[in-house]
Amino acid sequence: MATINTELGSLENTQWVSGTYCFGNPQVGTTRQGKSFLKCLLRDATGEVQGRMWSFDQHRLKELARTGFVRIEGSAENFNDQIQLKIESIEAVDVTESDMQQLLPSTVHDIEAMFRHVTALLHSRSHPAIRSLANAPRVDHALTPRSRLAPAAMAMHHAGIGGLLEHTRQLMCIADAIVPLYRGSIDRDLVLMGLFIHDLGKTIELTWQKGFDYTTEGNLVGHIARGAMWLEDKAGSCDPPLPGETLRVLQNIILSHHGEPEYGALRPPSTPEAILVSQLDNLDAKTQMAITAVQQPGAVGGAFTDKIWGLNSSRLYRPRPLDAGREAQGEDAIDATSLF
Amino acid sequence: MATINTELGSLENTQWVSGTYCFGNPQVGTTRQGKSFLKCLLRDATGEVQGRMWSFDQHRLKELARTGFVRIEGSAENFNDQIQLKIESIEAVDVTESDMQQLLPSTVHDIEAMFRHVTALLHSRSHPAIRSLANAPRVDHALTPRSRLAPAAMAMHHAGIGGLLEHTRQLMCIADAIVPLYRGSIDRDLVLMGLFIHDLGKTIELTWQKGFDYTTEGNLVGHIARGAMWLEDKAGSCDPPLPGETLRVLQNIILSHHGEPEYGALRPPSTPEAILVSQLDNLDAKTQMAITAVQQPGAVGGAFTDKIWGLNSSRLYRPRPLDAGREAQGEDAIDATSLF
Amino acid sequence: MATINTELGSLENTQWVSGTYCFGNPQVGTTRQGKSFLKCLLRDATGEVQGRMWSFDQHRLKELARTGFVRIEGSAENFNDQIQLKIESIEAVDVTESDMQQLLPSTVHDIEAMFRHVTALLHSRSHPAIRSLANAPRVDHALTPRSRLAPAAMAMHHAGIGGLLEHTRQLMCIADAIVPLYRGSIDRDLVLMGLFIHDLGKTIELTWQKGFDYTTEGNLVGHIARGAMWLEDKAGSCDPPLPGETLRVLQNIILSHHGEPEYGALRPPSTPEAILVSQLDNLDAKTQMAITAVQQPGAVGGAFTDKIWGLNSSRLYRPRPLDAGREAQGEDAIDATSLF
Amino acid sequence: MATINTELGSLENTQWVSGTYCFGNPQVGTTRQGKSFLKCLLRDATGEVQGRMWSFDQHRLKELARTGFVRIEGSAENFNDQIQLKIESIEAVDVTESDMQQLLPSTVHDIEAMFRHVTALLHSRSHPAIRSLANAPRVDHALTPRSRLAPAAMAMHHAGIGGLLEHTRQLMCIADAIVPLYRGSIDRDLVLMGLFIHDLGKTIELTWQKGFDYTTEGNLVGHIARGAMWLEDKAGSCDPPLPGETLRVLQNIILSHHGEPEYGALRPPSTPEAILVSQLDNLDAKTQMAITAVQQPGAVGGAFTDKIWGLNSSRLYRPRPLDAGREAQGEDAIDATSLF
Amino acid sequence: MATINTELGSLENTQWVSGTYCFGNPQVGTTRQGKSFLKCLLRDATGEVQGRMWSFDQHRLKELARTGFVRIEGSAENFNDQIQLKIESIEAVDVTESDMQQLLPSTVHDIEAMFRHVTALLHSRSHPAIRSLANAPRVDHALTPRSRLAPAAMAMHHAGIGGLLEHTRQLMCIADAIVPLYRGSIDRDLVLMGLFIHDLGKTIELTWQKGFDYTTEGNLVGHIARGAMWLEDKAGSCDPPLPGETLRVLQNIILSHHGEPEYGALRPPSTPEAILVSQLDNLDAKTQMAITAVQQPGAVGGAFTDKIWGLNSSRLYRPRPLDAGREAQGEDAIDATSLF
Amino acid sequence: MATINTELGSLENTQWVSGTYCFGNPQVGTTRQGKSFLKCLLRDATGEVQGRMWSFDQHRLKELARTGFVRIEGSAENFNDQIQLKIESIEAVDVTESDMQQLLPSTVHDIEAMFRHVTALLHSRSHPAIRSLANAPRVDHALTPRSRLAPAAMAMHHAGIGGLLEHTRQLMCIADAIVPLYRGSIDRDLVLMGLFIHDLGKTIELTWQKGFDYTTEGNLVGHIARGAMWLEDKAGSCDPPLPGETLRVLQNIILSHHGEPEYGALRPPSTPEAILVSQLDNLDAKTQMAITAVQQPGAVGGAFTDKIWGLNSSRLYRPRPLDAGREAQGEDAIDATSLF
Repeated sequence: MATINTELGSLENTQWVSGTYCFGNPQVGTTRQGKSFLKCLLRDATGEVQGRMWSFDQHRLKELARTGFVRIEGSAENFNDQIQLKIESIEAVDVTESDMQQLLPSTVHDIEAMFRHVTALLHSRSHPAIRSLANAPRVDHALTPRSRLAPAAMAMHHAGIGGLLEHTRQLMCIADAIVPLYRGSIDRDLVLMGLFIHDLGKTIELTWQKGFDYTTEGNLVGHIARGAMWLEDKAGSCDPPLPGETLRVLQNIILSHHGEPEYGALRPPSTPEAILVSQLDNLDAKTQMAITAVQQPGAVGGAFTDKIWGLNSSRLYRPRPLDAGREAQGEDAIDATSLF
Repeated sequence: MATINTELGSLENTQWVSGTYCFGNPQVGTTRQGKSFLKCLLRDATGEVQGRMWSFDQHRLKELARTGFVRIEGSAENFNDQIQLKIESIEAVDVTESDMQQLLPSTVHDIEAMFRHVTALLHSRSHPAIRSLANAPRVDHALTPRSRLAPAAMAMHHAGIGGLLEHTRQLMCIADAIVPLYRGSIDRDLVLMGLFIHDLGKTIELTWQKGFDYTTEGNLVGHIARGAMWLEDKAGSCDPPLPGETLRVLQNIILSHHGEPEYGALRPPSTPEAILVSQLDNLDAKTQMAITAVQQPGAVGGAFTDKIWGLNSSRLYRPRPLDAGREAQGEDAIDATSLF
Repeated sequence: MATINTELGSLENTQWVSGTYCFGNPQVGTTRQGKSFLKCLLRDATGEVQGRMWSFDQHRLKELARTGFVRIEGSAENFNDQIQLKIESIEAVDVTESDMQQLLPSTVHDIEAMFRHVTALLHSRSHPAIRSLANAPRVDHALTPRSRLAPAAMAMHHAGIGGLLEHTRQLMCIADAIVPLYRGSIDRDLVLMGLFIHDLGKTIELTWQKGFDYTTEGNLVGHIARGAMWLEDKAGSCDPPLPGETLRVLQNIILSHHGEPEYGALRPPSTPEAILVSQLDNLDAKTQMAITAVQQPGAVGGAFTDKIWGLNSSRLYRPRPLDAGREAQGEDAIDATSLF
Repeated sequence: MATINTELGSLENTQWVSGTYCFGNPQVGTTRQGKSFLKCLLRDATGEVQGRMWSFDQHRLKELARTGFVRIEGSAENFNDQIQLKIESIEAVDVTESDMQQLLPSTVHDIEAMFRHVTALLHSRSHPAIRSLANAPRVDHALTPRSRLAPAAMAMHHAGIGGLLEHTRQLMCIADAIVPLYRGSIDRDLVLMGLFIHDLGKTIELTWQKGFDYTTEGNLVGHIARGAMWLEDKAGSCDPPLPGETLRVLQNIILSHHGEPEYGALRPPSTPEAILVSQLDNLDAKTQMAITAVQQPGAVGGAFTDKIWGLNSSRLYRPRPLDAGREAQGEDAIDATSLF
Repeated sequence: MATINTELGSLENTQWVSGTYCFGNPQVGTTRQGKSFLKCLLRDATGEVQGRMWSFDQHRLKELARTGFVRIEGSAENFNDQIQLKIESIEAVDVTESDMQQLLPSTVHDIEAMFRHVTALLHSRSHPAIRSLANAPRVDHALTPRSRLAPAAMAMHHAGIGGLLEHTRQLMCIADAIVPLYRGSIDRDLVLMGLFIHDLGKTIELTWQKGFDYTTEGNLVGHIARGAMWLEDKAGSCDPPLPGETLRVLQNIILSHHGEPEYGALRPPSTPEAILVSQLDNLDAKTQMAITAVQQPGAVGGAFTDKIWGLNSSRLYRPRPLDAGREAQGEDAIDATSLF
Repeated sequence: MATINTELGSLENTQWVSGTYCFGNPQVGTTRQGKSFLKCLLRDATGEVQGRMWSFDQHRLKELARTGFVRIEGSAENFNDQIQLKIESIEAVDVTESDMQQLLPSTVHDIEAMFRHVTALLHSRSHPAIRSLANAPRVDHALTPRSRLAPAAMAMHHAGIGGLLEHTRQLMCIADAIVPLYRGSIDRDLVLMGLFIHDLGKTIELTWQKGFDYTTEGNLVGHIARGAMWLEDKAGSCDPPLPGETLRVLQNIILSHHGEPEYGALRPPSTPEAILVSQLDNLDAKTQMAITAVQQPGAVGGAFTDKIWGLNSSRLYRPRPLDAGREAQGEDAIDATSLF
């Protein structure tokens, strides 16, 4: 993939387009003259655009959809006030995992550095039962690379390559910072291990090789039950064995981390650690959605964003009221007792 | 109050009782023989007990209820399998604020130390508009002592003398620790100032001089509207003036900190900072409720607590599965890549 | 504005259009040939229409949007079965407040007459504390004209210039008629004052100078908290002072008038008067929505309206079953005892 | 029933009791010595009290329960701080309808005067179809007396003899006062007729001869379906016939008057008149509950009532803030323009 | 209707179209050149298509809409990637009921055979009161043919000609099979009669002569109240009379069969039979929706259907995992005790 | 356990009591005289009663609670109108499983016969993949006896020894009867296997050896996740292997059988078979609750039961309206066409 891809997010009318893109929703239509044409959706990390190829042999469709990515030549054109891509040539291409990170929305952080950070935080756990869990043979060899690349969601927050790792790392860092503030009442090992595994089932629930989608397993079983089953399996091969009580408490963290049944929790969070995990998960998801929303450029620079589905359909205020006029910190003393 | 109070939480049958207690729900009843008797509820920091005085002149009732505290002599007795206090003498007493901390459920932390900690965190803010707000003349001279003593709630979490300060301090510490993890996307000054003021209206909403209760103001107006009004008033006397935009964003934090309308939010949280404040408020309240619940001794040592109303009526698991067998931290390296 | 405006609600294909209109959603697009064009929404009191100006210098956009109103010449044309306005010339114009009433959807009642009616009803209050409130210095000099023109809502009911005044007047008239039927159990002064102020915050929550929209203040603070703050401020300058108890009861009416938290009430209605105010507000809003819906001409004269979002998405029956055949009233006696 | 009944609402310890009372929940218990005793609940218009008869032949139970009312001799005694009635003699008595009004909670208004008022309002309708409905043969001869005596509810509002009539009269008076304020957009005949019939099914749904309860018909079919069936039946015998369209609109008023399905509406209100009827029904019920609640003497004169289930479990503020200091009305002019 | 209708569900570009179709949503539009044209929706049992007639005298519209069916000549053409029907000639036609079954979506089962099956099941009831109900004079002569043709719903399940009969027959068969499994605890006669009548009101609620729609009666009164009224009327003419208790229990079955108020039940199901009827109604509706959904060909053969509104917006898995490799039944014994 | 147990459900005052009972909620109290006494709850299959032993060494408590069952001698006495058991001697006893069936509420059906019936239905499945699942080695040797004895619930329906088996058998019989009525659209093997396993996790979720209760595993993990994990484990040892697709569809049946998230479903039912299983589970549970409720003798023979929590708090009508007067079936022909 040495060639440079034209970015889809900033196409202009009549611009020539050349590159490799994620290939979605392919359909064969018929023109008024009765000829077959191809309709599809092309995506890269910067955006997406409708594509049309006006002379198309419909028998090519299956081959084209083989890998989920295509190499395209064509040109942008304006149709009904929207940019479309008029395709001149198209063929399926195989892409490597490192390509994928360029070709799909992706975390802005370095995946290897995040992985090392998570490793270091796991490293810091103190209890032998938890360590034996960490040292047990791998449940599933396919998991390690998947856990580096999986998104945390289809939409809303951390919905890109590496998003699951970014979300997990952020949660473990927050927990690392605040657990000590509860002075020994919260078990750090359970929280860190619980956060590490709480969403691991998403590596199977979601697929991203052909654009983001749910897998059949994701629809029928889901990441929550899958995570609990993995932990069950892995606990069976620990040495020394993970005590049953610890296993059940960790499974409860997985099964309850959505907090309430209507948000997908199978069990209520039943320990202070499970409550903290579910609260943190929600806190980071909502905060990240809000940050992303106010930083995205809106239409004509309005002060408020569009309604955000994941935030109770509220609209957020974009301006940062203190950004102008902030001075160096702490120059004169403030007497808190005069505050009110 | 030099005398030692008998603790109400551990009375035994036939024990002599002497001390000053919070005096609640006084009522005059009539015995089968037609004589007046006094029924009341007596409380101290350790618990509460029903009191009965079998020979009682009902005209004393108003005088007794004057200060909310009484000096009692009497003895414990077992009635229908419950301990009651049989009162021999009773009279109203005035109590000082430092007395009150001994006489009511109270934070276990040092109030002055917490107050200095909050002051230091406010001190660390960097923006001049926020500093001018802090330096404005006091809105209400009665507030400072009240903000040291107010509970954060009637029940459920931080429901004791100093509870509001404890909750506020904890939230500001958590925010101080995690705002940097969002790398400049969250305005630290807005979050810290927002957390400081978000529940200040509780100093007026609740009363604790005669046991914890809602005030008339608390019922009709509530702490949320009261907090927004105080901020409005205080902002008018800042120098340099607090910009209108900053005022509105801080008022939005107050008005929205319960998150959703059905939990009492008047507006949706409309900035990333408002979302973070409402999430943190919920996280600390729920986590603290859970910690308190599993640490309270339950009936006959069952593994699960009773249903906890503030936690979706769930029952929590008391045992700490890792408390036995935890070793010193970090003795052998764990390879995170072997985890799964 | 002596010139006659072509009404937008009844344009026909090829009709010449000339007039001053409210100018909304201006955007610059690009034609297939790469030339800039202007898209916008034009509105007057009779309706709205999409506008297109096919040769347009995009640097004019900011100047055009300055006042929210434009003077247009152009012609109607049929595009995809919808009438569009092809603009030949456009420029920003300043409009007076009396113009605005012609240029935007507006109450059909006389604004000055309604204002005098409301004045007379306020005049009829009997209690000195309420009178002192009425005679206090003005909180905000800008308010009086705004309260004549504000709409009561963005959509659904009373969504036009003067709508807030119309809604307030109607509520005060209804209250004036029914309070006596509760024979002294309902305080007329509290109800009338409460109705007068309950929605006053909408004068700041909504803007109508450039088409109807929420203000930043409206989104972040809202009309309910704003109304409570105004009353707080005004009560401080009454002579004789408004007693605190009366102030709190009136603030409760404002804070609770949406009835339930999920409809936006911050406090529950806590007096019979607050309950009556919230019930009346709902009654007039729903009844007016229903009247408007059945009187609007529907597509092809169907018996039922479309689903009405503000009425639980129900569809209303248009025909008035008794309109034919009603005779003069009361000609023969009816014996109610024979009814059933 | 010439004899005077001792009022149950104000019994004192050792007081002799003699009178006729409503007889509820009779049960036969066994003393520790194995002897049968009678437990029951006795009620009159002023209150209720538990009764015990310590020597009782259980075979008398069925006869005693025959009429729902008993003649009692006995004495009040204090047991566990509550007054009980120790019964010396008891026997079933038949009561007349006029007795019943004395023996059960009852409207404070004159039933005959209310009935004449309702008749006069029905008299004032103008449309011949509605008049023919009024003049149709009686559906059910038992209805007229029942409609004079039925309560409007088991609890909460208008829950006494004559309560249905009182509620209906109040609603028709309110409608009479406010329909003209909608200037011809609301059909007065439909609203008044709709209000008259909307709750008539309660005459069958509830029973009050043996204390208030639901009938079997009330539980299985309910007042809403029953009302619609009566109207169907009655419409079939009108002359001139009630047009089908008018019948359906009136049935829709009955079927929809609870407003929303979760409150028991079978259909949504589908005309402006049906919406107004359902809003008025709710307004009067809620307002009357609130008036009753603040006027009832509370425990120890607290400022707030207990939680009121029918008002979203809110607590109401009892004091009337303007009752002191109100002067004669209108002595000095108020300039509404100075208000804000 | 001897001529063959071109099927609308499989039109191809340029295909000549000739036949009789259901005629919906007729509207007259204006072309850019100011000429009138006709827009309409044409339907048959296989699908629907937009129609346009470009030269049209708008005074013909009322006559065309007279019967709800039209005879068309024209041709299919591709417009904006969708097939439209360009109409050359159009005129209203009268259709017979047997035509209607061909011209509208319709049950795949034989209507007369289903009717006989239902008759046989009713025949099998054993109680004389229920038989007298069945032998009572007809309530409404129009009902019999209507009950053969009515759909069971506008959409979602059994939404075709004969759908009500198909749904009723299936429910009666299921009940016939499972009532014996409850060993005498469920009254078969009540269940079968209850199922027969529970949805009969749909014959009036829905209309299908001019395409499926709700009638005015359906909107204002609905099938549930209508069914209860019919039963009331019919019970009045039974000989021997239907006992009041049986009538009320059957009416409760009708009024409660939607189970819960938010799904449209006016009363709760109050007998085991009413609970079983409401459960069966839901079971068959949901199961049939699911079967239909997985059998419909989806876009590009995806494994999951679209979201299905009537099934909580879930998406169903199409593949039948056991369809390959199923062998003849029961060839080797399975020991259930070895199962787990 | 040769001795005869006095039945607790029919104790009379002063009756001598001797037998073995389930021993619950043991607590040590203190009399007014400061002496220890034992409070406990004693249960057998016929009912439960409070027990008191007035002279008790509290160090015996732990030993007494060892097995969950005790041998008692004592006498019934009437206290505050309730029968209590005054214990004279008490000691822990070990009970066998067959004892347990006599000592706890239990199914009225023969457990071995039900087990054979379920075996036969499993035997009738036709697909080799399902057969291989049935023939796989046992997941858990403890399961077989547990699955014979487990209750289906703590309360509400099938809440006795053998209740799970009774519920499972009934569901499989119903499915066996109605699947053919869907004519090949529903896969019988999946439904029967799905019903067999859907609640198997309850054998671990609930404990009944010491009275019915949730286990720690039941609270933290629950029967739904446990069932899915068992199936995962068992599928791994099938020969030939269970295809992944079949496994996932069966796991979806387990995870979704509560239907909706608020009732505890982790995934939506995603096949017609999963929808049918969840509907049947609900149908049998609700129907059985209703049958049980109307058959239980109520207080004083009222026509309606108490509110039933599991049936939306509705009250059921007890009388069976057709039980009198039913004649032999089918004696005269009914013409269904005359029905309406």
